[in-house]
Amino acid sequence: MCGIVGFTGSQNAAPILLDGLKKLEYRGYDSAGMAVLGQDGIQMVKTIGMIKNLDNKTQGGAALPGTAGIGHTRWATHGEPTDVNAHPHMSNDDKFAIVHNGIIENYAQLREELKAKGFQFKSETDTEVIVHLLDLYYEGDLKKAVLKTVSRLEGAYALGILCAEEGGRLIATRHAAPLIVGVGIGENYFASDVTALVAYTKNVIYLEDGEIADITPDRITVYDSIGKNLEKSITRIAWDIAAAEKGGYDHFMLKEIMEQPNAIKSTIEPRIQNGEVVLDDFSLTDEDLRQINKIMITACGSAFYAGSVGKYVMEELCRIPVEADLASELRYRNPLVDEHTLLVVVSQSGETADTIAAMKECKARGARILAIVNVVGSTIAKLADHVIYTWAGPEIAVATTKGYTTQVAVLDMLAVYLARRLGKLDDQRNKELVEAILQFPSLIQRAIDLNPNLPALAQKYHGHNDMFFIGRNVDYAASMEGSLKLKEISYLHSEAYAAGELKHGTIALIEKDRPVIALACYEALFDKMMSNIKEVKARGAQVLAVVLEGNRQIFAEADDVIFVPRTEALFNSLPEIVPLQLFAYYVARANGCDIDKPKNLAKSVTVE
Amino acid sequence: MCGIVGFTGSQNAAPILLDGLKKLEYRGYDSAGMAVLGQDGIQMVKTIGMIKNLDNKTQGGAALPGTAGIGHTRWATHGEPTDVNAHPHMSNDDKFAIVHNGIIENYAQLREELKAKGFQFKSETDTEVIVHLLDLYYEGDLKKAVLKTVSRLEGAYALGILCAEEGGRLIATRHAAPLIVGVGIGENYFASDVTALVAYTKNVIYLEDGEIADITPDRITVYDSIGKNLEKSITRIAWDIAAAEKGGYDHFMLKEIMEQPNAIKSTIEPRIQNGEVVLDDFSLTDEDLRQINKIMITACGSAFYAGSVGKYVMEELCRIPVEADLASELRYRNPLVDEHTLLVVVSQSGETADTIAAMKECKARGARILAIVNVVGSTIAKLADHVIYTWAGPEIAVATTKGYTTQVAVLDMLAVYLARRLGKLDDQRNKELVEAILQFPSLIQRAIDLNPNLPALAQKYHGHNDMFFIGRNVDYAASMEGSLKLKEISYLHSEAYAAGELKHGTIALIEKDRPVIALACYEALFDKMMSNIKEVKARGAQVLAVVLEGNRQIFAEADDVIFVPRTEALFNSLPEIVPLQLFAYYVARANGCDIDKPKNLAKSVTVE
Repeated sequence: MCGIVGFTGSQNAAPILLDGLKKLEYRGYDSAGMAVLGQDGIQMVKTIGMIKNLDNKTQGGAALPGTAGIGHTRWATHGEPTDVNAHPHMSNDDKFAIVHNGIIENYAQLREELKAKGFQFKSETDTEVIVHLLDLYYEGDLKKAVLKTVSRLEGAYALGILCAEEGGRLIATRHAAPLIVGVGIGENYFASDVTALVAYTKNVIYLEDGEIADITPDRITVYDSIGKNLEKSITRIAWDIAAAEKGGYDHFMLKEIMEQPNAIKSTIEPRIQNGEVVLDDFSLTDEDLRQINKIMITACGSAFYAGSVGKYVMEELCRIPVEADLASELRYRNPLVDEHTLLVVVSQSGETADTIAAMKECKARGARILAIVNVVGSTIAKLADHVIYTWAGPEIAVATTKGYTTQVAVLDMLAVYLARRLGKLDDQRNKELVEAILQFPSLIQRAIDLNPNLPALAQKYHGHNDMFFIGRNVDYAASMEGSLKLKEISYLHSEAYAAGELKHGTIALIEKDRPVIALACYEALFDKMMSNIKEVKARGAQVLAVVLEGNRQIFAEADDVIFVPRTEALFNSLPEIVPLQLFAYYVARANGCDIDKPKNLAKSVTVE
Repeated sequence: MCGIVGFTGSQNAAPILLDGLKKLEYRGYDSAGMAVLGQDGIQMVKTIGMIKNLDNKTQGGAALPGTAGIGHTRWATHGEPTDVNAHPHMSNDDKFAIVHNGIIENYAQLREELKAKGFQFKSETDTEVIVHLLDLYYEGDLKKAVLKTVSRLEGAYALGILCAEEGGRLIATRHAAPLIVGVGIGENYFASDVTALVAYTKNVIYLEDGEIADITPDRITVYDSIGKNLEKSITRIAWDIAAAEKGGYDHFMLKEIMEQPNAIKSTIEPRIQNGEVVLDDFSLTDEDLRQINKIMITACGSAFYAGSVGKYVMEELCRIPVEADLASELRYRNPLVDEHTLLVVVSQSGETADTIAAMKECKARGARILAIVNVVGSTIAKLADHVIYTWAGPEIAVATTKGYTTQVAVLDMLAVYLARRLGKLDDQRNKELVEAILQFPSLIQRAIDLNPNLPALAQKYHGHNDMFFIGRNVDYAASMEGSLKLKEISYLHSEAYAAGELKHGTIALIEKDRPVIALACYEALFDKMMSNIKEVKARGAQVLAVVLEGNRQIFAEADDVIFVPRTEALFNSLPEIVPLQLFAYYVARANGCDIDKPKNLAKSVTVE
């Protein structure tokens, strides 16, 4: 899971590469590097740490003159984050430099083969085999060498290649990893995604698996894996560069939390028409619908927790069995999926490797695929039968906020839509639910406004090493996401538990002053939650309770209270998560953590 | 979740009560107390802490002379563990003393009512209302007062009553909490379960919900909730008292770990006949079987993790959808269950409150219920349509070991049995699986013998506050139980993760020297696990890997290795958990924890 970028034109490449890499830091940032073709051949600079280190080391790129180059920001998979393991990697004769995102699965065999032929390996990476293969196969014909090299690779890759003997010519190719080509005037680009290029061009070509782009300042040629030229169309991207800046907030995460009312508004409003949920993008006939006897939701990380909310809501409203399964588990467990299964795939980036694999596995078994995705043109969006986009806009902070809540909003809408089409909702109930959905933007704004005390609560709780979240039903689903937020950005060891399950073991860890965050917005089970709160209080815990606005009973037990505005009980988890995002944010801030770029994490996980 | 005991006869009651309470400590031990009727009326002693405190405070019972009495060991639900909140509770006029296991849900209203009538409350418990009700309704007729009192109670209770004006007469009654009456010669007893009585009598009467036993030294009368006399039969219990002692081991837990080969042998051998799994206790006709389109497994704690193993194994072999759901969640989520659902309920004690409730909920919807239970005559065993007993014998340590592994063994057998009857297993594959099952006892013995280094590993790792377990597929299911063991007895904050999911957030917590226990016995996914191990190693983690015997590749990455003997891949989690039980045991020992009775925990959780 890395970011790559390439430039060829008439300006100096390095400053443009640095700028692109900064936009790609969300894909990983444990080390970075650039290689530029100058007068004396290829010059390379690499360093551990974030892009600003590379910026310093190259004086903003000035130390690397030349008009064609490639860059990389890394998230380590094979080999620790070190200068040597950072990309680019070069051939022994300095003829080739490459950058790579992905994992080469047969690298061990290739490494042995190349060593036997006398190639010297400098790094512990899987990537380095590629550059030596190029060197091995290059006899003056770059296209031939590239075709031969990629035919030897197993695994996933987005690859950028620079050759000292080919002037300003770049090669970019992908298999199971994202890559786009940017089209300029007298200059061209490639990158892992559009955020890296949007300041330079809005015209891009999406590469498909196995396609190879041959890029010079004046021409882009795309051919397939046997070398046959392809016709590719240019897509104009609609994102505004301003949307990728912080806009006055200290962190992207805080900005994105505050953007949620608008993001949700963009996501739901076009889809409510005349009091009904309308999903134009989901063209299921009544006949198709009757064929479906199971809904399966698969995803990773926060998107999986959104799916867990979806399971409760959909099963309750649609009365169809709904299973939520981790993509990394589903893909390998020979799942019971067939043409009667609707697979709902959830991913912000649309590039999550495990999710793509689980989706392909289920598609091969005949499942109909509905994707809930934020990034247009992403791999998942392209592979799915139907796509419902979350119109959250670009999400830069590694810890998702508006990405998650827009997913939950779409799942809530999908539940109402399916229930209605299945005849499970009468007009009155449908009206209530649709009205509740239309209130989501103001509901979320109110969830923010109701809790001005969150920075103070964070000051009280931030010093603890361990915390527990408990909840029941949709509160439980929300508690998993609340706990993950805290983990991701504050490095606190927090864990979520179904409240009824705590006493079956984990309550052994409850001791004096241990913080327990108790989500108790689901009113039907409020009394049960009060019993669980009493159990942990009896053992000395400090309880921070999350309850519906107006609840007074909670003061008898809780040490601190977060209030959440009232909506339909099934939709509670949506407003409920918002103060927990803010709580995590302020705890991380109190602990001095790097909020937008937590250690070890990458925004979109494109390896298994 | 408490233990209660009562005695009436011609010997002094207190020493017998103390002895019974010690056997019931597994049900809770935060405080204890006794009340005995002597020459000067009822005398009572209560104290915080375990039974040995009560023993000391009463000089082994000598301080409480008298031949009729009641005792209690508590696990707090309402009110902190204090002397005052400990049971028994007495009426204001010292006429009545009672002991109670359960929760009275309408206690708040009753309390207001009784206060208004002038009763003085001393404790914060829900129980105290009962004793004042008795006092209120008693006008010389004990039976009448009891009937009137229980008619006012909502919730769960097992109740023991002693009255100063009724000589050696005891009342015992239950609703949704376990209670038995022991039949002696010239003396009689009641207790929460047979372990408390087995040293004195092997003849017991099982009380049903709502039944009331009127007990004197010479007579036991049982009547129903409207006072009508009932015919009850006496059951002779087969447990040997020696089995409830430690037999040379330092702790019950270690003894029970070592008993696993025998426990599993007793559980499986009678059920393998002529190369087939035979489940005599499971009388499903072929027609019944064809009706089933979904299997649902529900349980709490370790039994749920056993169910999670069962899900993988059953779904793979039977190709029927299998859902594993926490009982505390299932019972309240309006589950999609009908007469085509087979509900598999797993519980060691057979008294787990949430599991009983989930079972009743599903039964009301028409599901067929199969229980996997260890305690004969327990509530779950009695309510289920079919019961497969795990013949593990009494389990005393609070952290389950042989209880869990015998459950997994039964679920493995059940999977093979169902798959065979559904025509999904040919003779050859059936033969392989049955042979593998027959090897379970020696497999588990070998899993113990292969790892003499576990005390040393525990010395290396015990000082950490946080650990992570990772695994995929059945390894993931086993990792959840491995992590829970460590939590329960060593109070380490350990957490299990699907290995592919770690990088979607939790990897932020991986730092230098953080221990990661990687379960990698499922060979089909070994390479994927190696990639995940490399990821955490690249961030500085110390990796303790659990792999199949003979695996040499692991030494390239892991810091320490635990070996597990080879069996059918689907059955791996059974031998795999055994060294992890021992690891948790030795870590807890190195940390000086009270292994058999971890703080805050009770053996069988008979409250929600």
